[in-house]
Amino acid sequence: MLDKTHDQALLSWVDSANGHPQFPIQNLPFGVFSPPSGVPRVGVAIGDAVLDLAALSRAGLLDTSVSEACDRPELNALMLLGSGARRLIREKLSSLLSERGARMAVSDALYLAADCTLHLPARIGDYTDFYAGIHHARAVGKIFRPDEPLMPNYVHLPIGYHGRSSSIVASGTPVKRPSGQVVGEQGPIFSSSAKLDYELEMAIWIGGANDRGSTVPIRDAQNAVWGYGLLNDWSARDIQSWEYRPLGPFLSKNFITTVSPWVTTPEALAPFRRPAFPRDTRPMDYLFDDADQAGGGVDISLEVSLSTTRSRDEGLPDFVLSVSHSRYLYWTAAQLVAHHASGGCPLRAGDLFGTGTISGPAKHEAGSLLELSTDGRVPVDLPSGETRTYLQDGDEITLRGICKKDGFASISLGECRGRIE
Amino acid sequence: MLDKTHDQALLSWVDSANGHPQFPIQNLPFGVFSPPSGVPRVGVAIGDAVLDLAALSRAGLLDTSVSEACDRPELNALMLLGSGARRLIREKLSSLLSERGARMAVSDALYLAADCTLHLPARIGDYTDFYAGIHHARAVGKIFRPDEPLMPNYVHLPIGYHGRSSSIVASGTPVKRPSGQVVGEQGPIFSSSAKLDYELEMAIWIGGANDRGSTVPIRDAQNAVWGYGLLNDWSARDIQSWEYRPLGPFLSKNFITTVSPWVTTPEALAPFRRPAFPRDTRPMDYLFDDADQAGGGVDISLEVSLSTTRSRDEGLPDFVLSVSHSRYLYWTAAQLVAHHASGGCPLRAGDLFGTGTISGPAKHEAGSLLELSTDGRVPVDLPSGETRTYLQDGDEITLRGICKKDGFASISLGECRGRIE
Repeated sequence: MLDKTHDQALLSWVDSANGHPQFPIQNLPFGVFSPPSGVPRVGVAIGDAVLDLAALSRAGLLDTSVSEACDRPELNALMLLGSGARRLIREKLSSLLSERGARMAVSDALYLAADCTLHLPARIGDYTDFYAGIHHARAVGKIFRPDEPLMPNYVHLPIGYHGRSSSIVASGTPVKRPSGQVVGEQGPIFSSSAKLDYELEMAIWIGGANDRGSTVPIRDAQNAVWGYGLLNDWSARDIQSWEYRPLGPFLSKNFITTVSPWVTTPEALAPFRRPAFPRDTRPMDYLFDDADQAGGGVDISLEVSLSTTRSRDEGLPDFVLSVSHSRYLYWTAAQLVAHHASGGCPLRAGDLFGTGTISGPAKHEAGSLLELSTDGRVPVDLPSGETRTYLQDGDEITLRGICKKDGFASISLGECRGRIE
Repeated sequence: MLDKTHDQALLSWVDSANGHPQFPIQNLPFGVFSPPSGVPRVGVAIGDAVLDLAALSRAGLLDTSVSEACDRPELNALMLLGSGARRLIREKLSSLLSERGARMAVSDALYLAADCTLHLPARIGDYTDFYAGIHHARAVGKIFRPDEPLMPNYVHLPIGYHGRSSSIVASGTPVKRPSGQVVGEQGPIFSSSAKLDYELEMAIWIGGANDRGSTVPIRDAQNAVWGYGLLNDWSARDIQSWEYRPLGPFLSKNFITTVSPWVTTPEALAPFRRPAFPRDTRPMDYLFDDADQAGGGVDISLEVSLSTTRSRDEGLPDFVLSVSHSRYLYWTAAQLVAHHASGGCPLRAGDLFGTGTISGPAKHEAGSLLELSTDGRVPVDLPSGETRTYLQDGDEITLRGICKKDGFASISLGECRGRIE
């Protein structure tokens, strides 16, 4: 699986890439960006720059089998081409960005990332939010159903529900506090949400997978995962607790969902694979594959940080609200794919999965304020001298994900950021 | 609201339209069809024929403001133009199809419906399924939660959840029985669903409504409804009962959803408006509008019929499983729109709502086999001598919706049909 694109010693003639904490040449995540006064197009992050794949395509520097798909305002066409096309581009870019001889031909296609606008990576057909963070499921269950924190189905199937694609936005988009029905002292009222929360999740982008009525066998399912990112499933807890029975969350989630703009590929994450979550209950056959059990997990350190109006005014750094880790996901990405398709539901290129909130077993590893503040009962102290139960206007939440391993360059999923207006 | 397009005396030179049980000239529903060896395009049903709006556009017979939107393989562009464009086309077609002088110019754009293929009317961005049939909600609640059949939130807000758009198909598409996790005698197993059910719903097609972060005031909400149809929310009850807690139905619904191909407009339904559902609890202000209370309902008689392999072999007619009525919807279409957008979730042209299963209070008015057979405990007798608890392979379900009123031509929502393979 590992090849020269993963070599820690590989350097780029894009100087900022070497030792870059997010985007060294070993990462090469895909996204959609607009250069200054330009239209949206496919790009790849390299150090502090963005490489314009549409320009490379037009210059004949990419294989003709992928060049048309790179000259689009969204990744869907590229995602539809599957893992082979993605690997082909990765290998080509790894060469072009490391070989000095290519610098002349390629450097015209580079833009300073700071000058560019980053967009949603894909036109999202359907968005599904899972519930694969077992410590989150258990912690939330304890708050709302103390007698039965984890439902009996949890260890047998990936719990998930359909989300709303129309309100998914790219990192940096301001977040408007929603209004909705909440329970007041004299019964339900329509009010601005007083329990606005974030949820630390990973994003999983899907390549074309299956037609309606067919399934994705677990051994092929990882191949349907086109890439990974971060996702903040903003949640209005007071709206949620009133509306969610019996059919699940609805308006408490669909006002906005933020995703990170860069899609980190399975190839970039290859050095950081780990075994699936250890468990007592063997997954059913359609969710069980030896290779997936051995290496279907991934090692990503996750972090949620907060800045407030006051902390920014006082020049304080972002405060880390919690740290977590992708190893707390009870199901692998392949298991999510195989389960989603197991009844014949078609997965299309550009579909998005959220993993569900990823919390660890320790208090400081909680992936939401619902957990950190025990639904508002225990305020969290901030270094600015403030406290938080839920988010206040002006608060900015940033999710980060970083992969580190001895012998390999560190890579990052980038950032997923949003500020309450 | 009523104009000459509603005149019962209005006749068409398309002879089959006059007295047609579904598509007289007073209906004029929109859809997308392919003529023999042609590509998909916008059409309107008239009697036994389909009128090609793309051809009319190219011939200069439609207003230039709408002609481009009519020359597409989907209704989205037309839906985005809103109610004004829709009314303009209706009035024009009503004239063209009634005035003999137009026959020469128009008749080349007519195809026999029997020769055409009907498609999904729109590229569906997001699909939301509501739960607005109060008798269904109460009946299902009685089966699963005898102590609390109707949740306390039910009378205050339209319960809804997000569905899957990728598995929505047009009427006539074969239905494949899904497999999934169900609870067997020794615990959960992966198995073909033994409790395949239909759900009688109405489809509501949305025109462009609101941007993210903005809302749709209830007084404007009816204007966001572009049209109506029928929807069969096929459900695997054994998969549903195991997976649905705590986040709602998922794979039990997303294997297939069937919609009727023709979109009947609010203009066609204007003679059949009725008051909103009578209730004890006044809706909150954002759901309350005098005009909507007075005329936000609609009078549509609904019917579910079944044929089986044996009944067809024996030449028996379809068996009516149940009859129901749109007056059993607790919320109006405008209330569904206003609620959906109340937290800032953007509604886009081509979005689809299901109303939720529409059952009446009487047993023979149940909109699903879950209710008709009390979750399989009481078999339903069929005229063929067979019985049914849930659907068997070969069974074909057809939903129909008809509007009748003295002094007006009867119109129909057409058919929504699917056969289990």
